[in-house]
Amino acid sequence: MSRFLSDKYSKLIPYTPGEQPKEMEYIKLNTNESPFSPSPKAVKYAAKEAERLNLYPDPECRVLTQKLADKLGVEFDEVLLTNGSDEILNFAFMAYCDFKNGAIFPDITYGFYKVFADLYNIDAVQVPLNSDFTIDITKYFNCGRTVFIANPNAPTGIALSLSEIEKIIINNPDNIVVIDEAYVDFGNESCVNLIHKYDNLLVTQTFSKSRSMAGARLGFGVGCKELIRDLNTVKYSTNPYNINKMTMAAGIGVLEDEEYTLNNCREIVKNREFVTNELKNLGFEMTNSTANFIFVKHNEIDGKELYLKLKENGVLVRHFDKNIISQYNRITIGTKSQMTTLLDTIKRIMEEQI
Amino acid sequence: MSRFLSDKYSKLIPYTPGEQPKEMEYIKLNTNESPFSPSPKAVKYAAKEAERLNLYPDPECRVLTQKLADKLGVEFDEVLLTNGSDEILNFAFMAYCDFKNGAIFPDITYGFYKVFADLYNIDAVQVPLNSDFTIDITKYFNCGRTVFIANPNAPTGIALSLSEIEKIIINNPDNIVVIDEAYVDFGNESCVNLIHKYDNLLVTQTFSKSRSMAGARLGFGVGCKELIRDLNTVKYSTNPYNINKMTMAAGIGVLEDEEYTLNNCREIVKNREFVTNELKNLGFEMTNSTANFIFVKHNEIDGKELYLKLKENGVLVRHFDKNIISQYNRITIGTKSQMTTLLDTIKRIMEEQI
Repeated sequence: MSRFLSDKYSKLIPYTPGEQPKEMEYIKLNTNESPFSPSPKAVKYAAKEAERLNLYPDPECRVLTQKLADKLGVEFDEVLLTNGSDEILNFAFMAYCDFKNGAIFPDITYGFYKVFADLYNIDAVQVPLNSDFTIDITKYFNCGRTVFIANPNAPTGIALSLSEIEKIIINNPDNIVVIDEAYVDFGNESCVNLIHKYDNLLVTQTFSKSRSMAGARLGFGVGCKELIRDLNTVKYSTNPYNINKMTMAAGIGVLEDEEYTLNNCREIVKNREFVTNELKNLGFEMTNSTANFIFVKHNEIDGKELYLKLKENGVLVRHFDKNIISQYNRITIGTKSQMTTLLDTIKRIMEEQI
Repeated sequence: MSRFLSDKYSKLIPYTPGEQPKEMEYIKLNTNESPFSPSPKAVKYAAKEAERLNLYPDPECRVLTQKLADKLGVEFDEVLLTNGSDEILNFAFMAYCDFKNGAIFPDITYGFYKVFADLYNIDAVQVPLNSDFTIDITKYFNCGRTVFIANPNAPTGIALSLSEIEKIIINNPDNIVVIDEAYVDFGNESCVNLIHKYDNLLVTQTFSKSRSMAGARLGFGVGCKELIRDLNTVKYSTNPYNINKMTMAAGIGVLEDEEYTLNNCREIVKNREFVTNELKNLGFEMTNSTANFIFVKHNEIDGKELYLKLKENGVLVRHFDKNIISQYNRITIGTKSQMTTLLDTIKRIMEEQI
């Protein structure tokens, strides 16, 4: 760091994105991307919009916001689009946490929550998961902090039910509960409709996973009008033109092509079941993931070693050094063919192991 | 605001982007956009990249960053790309200002500096411009604050010389000096090369103006490696994937098409001279702008009234209510044909006035 950097960042440890090695072609199963191309409609609209880049985008994202609101069954002013869902999470930390009002989230969850808390010097309680990696919801009741829950959770893939989520919301009447639904579209029910019942609920989602738009950076938050107004205050004080024109156009395209998204999600769920069964047959243990990834370990091979051997063999998965989960690997669900290659590679590694 | 919003934002007044009325077709001369289409190469590359949106962008923006560094005559790790130049300015406020280290900038300048200062509760000194709207550089010497200077300044368009900029840098050896060169490409010399001489200089620029990419959101900062490392710490703690793939591709395209950008800049300078002369003949007074806009007033018509009458007649310019400049309008330089329409409209308004 330079001699000028503010002291407040002297101990800050930034987020580490999944690796993107360039030295060879990998089967990328490490960042939970969609293996499917974006919707042809998204591509077409984005390409068309590229011709008009000389003009600023609409800072209110009117067309896309209305279309998304319609799809979600909410009002225009109950939605805020952001530059990826990291940005809406950032805005939530800015708006709803401060030196008086800390944060609370599981110790094993999306790593960015801790980074945001540290960035803004917010006191954060990290609640241990149960030994089976499930979340004990009662630990989030009435703790006087802003609650951040990824549902399903990452990297475990385990989801809370809608009624469990509702209990967390009810039991925090004076604090915001942020439900991060980045992985909701692969067999889970969203809690978006609860925003009409509770003024303390903010739901975040992303176009990166089910909608094949990780490269476009589009996320959003849904909440009651007052919350969206708060978050707009933060947006208009940091980056009013946060969404570029091409991404907005691609978002409109993919929302007009809902069947394409639904088909891709069904395919991911099918491939998840396939690879889950095959890995169980090979002696793997895993969490009950309802996301577009699985979280697996094998008693006969060290987690880090499996990760490294897969990488050597051209398959990238995500391994976390954190002690409690160091025996596990998080594997993104890809196409049937990618899953078959993964399984063949794992079999080969396991055979060499013996 | 909701009952949950942090008290720290209770008095925050967000930035107001230039209006984008939809009720009719306007000649848009209010947000300093380029009137020229983006480079065909930028369009082509962006459209191609739209086909691969399912994968995350490279968080290091390696290809574009290297190409930009080469063009600027600096190293790869002396450049940081951001989601518009508002984001690099935001990062600079985060990294280099805090409760101990305030900010200083002119009272008449890019309005976002004050918003950032308020957002982070940073003490900000706003130094009055001289009566002719020039900046008295001595007022920025050794004031123990992070200095923000737009050069040329907005909305006046008046530039400081390179030697004046260097004096500000030399006279702040222990503070960062941010030179915001959003409008540098229309007849000014950049101070980018000074980063090799001074470790306290951060230069920011944008692809929004001269490169016809306002809709793509691409800006950047240039500074010594230590500064860029600081700013990367902030980036990786807020939004590691801040630039989407299509924007990155468009940026590569426009940098490969430098002649296109240079031609457009020459055309803007020519049209600026044309409209300046014509307006002077009509009795307008104006600052000596070297940006892609002019800042004009007329003793016989009130600034706000001229703005409103132009709007009524389908020409949007930018008017600021702030007292000292309320007699002025900021007019973006467009195509020759747009400038002719502007002049005809102004003549008509002035005639009706008499």
